[in-house]
Amino acid sequence: MDEFELIRSYMAPLAGGEGLGLQDDAAVLSPEPGYDLVFTKDTLVEGVHFPEGYFDQDVAQRLLRVNLSDLAAKGAKPIGYLLSLALPKAIQPYQISDFANGLKHVQSLYDFKLFGGDTVSTNGPTIVTATLIGNVPSGKMIKRNGARIGDEIWVTGAIGDGLLGLLTVMEDAETDSLSPEFRSFCELAYWRPQPPMPLRQMLLNWASASADVSDGLLADLETICRVSHLGMDINLEDVPLSAVGRHWAGQKLSTLEAKLQMITAGDDYQVIFTTSPDAGSVITAFSSDLGLPVTRIGKCVAGSDVRLIDQSGQEIPVPNKGYVHFQEKTR
Amino acid sequence: MDEFELIRSYMAPLAGGEGLGLQDDAAVLSPEPGYDLVFTKDTLVEGVHFPEGYFDQDVAQRLLRVNLSDLAAKGAKPIGYLLSLALPKAIQPYQISDFANGLKHVQSLYDFKLFGGDTVSTNGPTIVTATLIGNVPSGKMIKRNGARIGDEIWVTGAIGDGLLGLLTVMEDAETDSLSPEFRSFCELAYWRPQPPMPLRQMLLNWASASADVSDGLLADLETICRVSHLGMDINLEDVPLSAVGRHWAGQKLSTLEAKLQMITAGDDYQVIFTTSPDAGSVITAFSSDLGLPVTRIGKCVAGSDVRLIDQSGQEIPVPNKGYVHFQEKTR
Repeated sequence: MDEFELIRSYMAPLAGGEGLGLQDDAAVLSPEPGYDLVFTKDTLVEGVHFPEGYFDQDVAQRLLRVNLSDLAAKGAKPIGYLLSLALPKAIQPYQISDFANGLKHVQSLYDFKLFGGDTVSTNGPTIVTATLIGNVPSGKMIKRNGARIGDEIWVTGAIGDGLLGLLTVMEDAETDSLSPEFRSFCELAYWRPQPPMPLRQMLLNWASASADVSDGLLADLETICRVSHLGMDINLEDVPLSAVGRHWAGQKLSTLEAKLQMITAGDDYQVIFTTSPDAGSVITAFSSDLGLPVTRIGKCVAGSDVRLIDQSGQEIPVPNKGYVHFQEKTR
Repeated sequence: MDEFELIRSYMAPLAGGEGLGLQDDAAVLSPEPGYDLVFTKDTLVEGVHFPEGYFDQDVAQRLLRVNLSDLAAKGAKPIGYLLSLALPKAIQPYQISDFANGLKHVQSLYDFKLFGGDTVSTNGPTIVTATLIGNVPSGKMIKRNGARIGDEIWVTGAIGDGLLGLLTVMEDAETDSLSPEFRSFCELAYWRPQPPMPLRQMLLNWASASADVSDGLLADLETICRVSHLGMDINLEDVPLSAVGRHWAGQKLSTLEAKLQMITAGDDYQVIFTTSPDAGSVITAFSSDLGLPVTRIGKCVAGSDVRLIDQSGQEIPVPNKGYVHFQEKTR
């Protein structure tokens, strides 16, 4: 089967009007007046961002979901995406079909369409890239640089399940002791991150700055510090963990060590944001109304760094705040 | 050096306002009223679309230029792009710097900016992807499906230098006999394709369908046939070759074989388009005014295929009309 047939069979049904049935070499979009377009791009490399040998609906779901968390953080509604696939020549039609099913599922959950893309063959690892396009009311995109000293810092969902998901999928001995139910939970957290898209309108109304948690809670908070020119005090005990996360950290020799791992590992795809202190009650109301937990974890202060604080107000030293490419860490 | 520092140092100066200095996790664009946005995406894989071991300004130029030809074919003016880099860990800062210089050069030639992107490390070949964003007056994008029976078929520039460029860069014995000057010409054709952007307005005004020549002249014409539901008669003798191309084909045992290779090899990044027969004189006038050659090579007819015709009106059989991924050919 050639590239064109492959695209026709499996991808054309995913295309919106903008993708012209994938029969053109470009996609065309008539922007809605009064809206800005927001672009995000994330790439997954086999053996780096997902385990070797996979190319299925799980990979497709993960690809779109990790991009959707960027849009959610910006307050943007997804409208479409472009897809780049670098695939080994030995890829099988059933794999493409399964991958397309994963795309389709996420598209229908969040109501957006495939605009186009390209497919190439590679003799290296499979690499999949999506460029997501979303929109926000003109001038309203939430940036990283809008945090102010005195603002409160919030995070959606739970932090650390990204790490547990990775360890479980990689069959790392670290999660061997978890029950089968807990392991399933972790695998799902890995393959199906849940970007907090329903909180979009709340973020647009109230967030002064926001970002998603992809490189690690502390590292991503630091990017806000850097461009907002301030520091942050984060209370470790306030960082929300899931029941599985609390259990895992609790059974480790050093619970502190375990928690530090969880808040620096990344892959959570939750949203961190800052708000003026008087917005606290409305944030809490929104959150409980939607049934999506949002937790206050600290405060913006004068300074230039994220400081992690314990219950007695003492700073906890953190040797390495997050995942950095082109360095020593592997995953 | 970490990923962030790398991006800050080399890529931030390339970013427009939409890229927010690459300090955010998204780019934001306020679309110009009255315009549609056009998206194209092309990927280059080391060892497939450029020779192994390269990561320099040549690769950057080729990446942007092969995407620009798609925009030119659609009648779209480039405004920005997103860049995905999958790089080996051993990549050196001077290589990133050189690559960035290539991006900068093409950006300033065609007046568009970097909006954002992402960088990952890979243990396979280097893979670079660009998503280009252009605009056209609302509803005016030139599609592949607008050709009508009776329309004339045109091509910009010369066809076949893409093949000679590839053979030269790959140090294939096929181009050993060329003079050093001719070999330089071929290398330049490979690394610096010249998308016929200045013809954009002419295409917007007069083209009924268009596409760029990336997979091979005949294969790309066939995509227009397929979606416009017609056939094409192409006169081989009318297909424009460069002086180097004519020389190369002339010295081969079979000039016909050589020409067939040139019109099926791809990588030309010129534009093919169709027009109503009464547009001939205005097309010629535009072309000579801009000093950019445009050549009439055939006619749209009833049918479903591209037929290659010789001077006596006989059909020339063509075993394989173009480059197809996931099949037998390698390059």
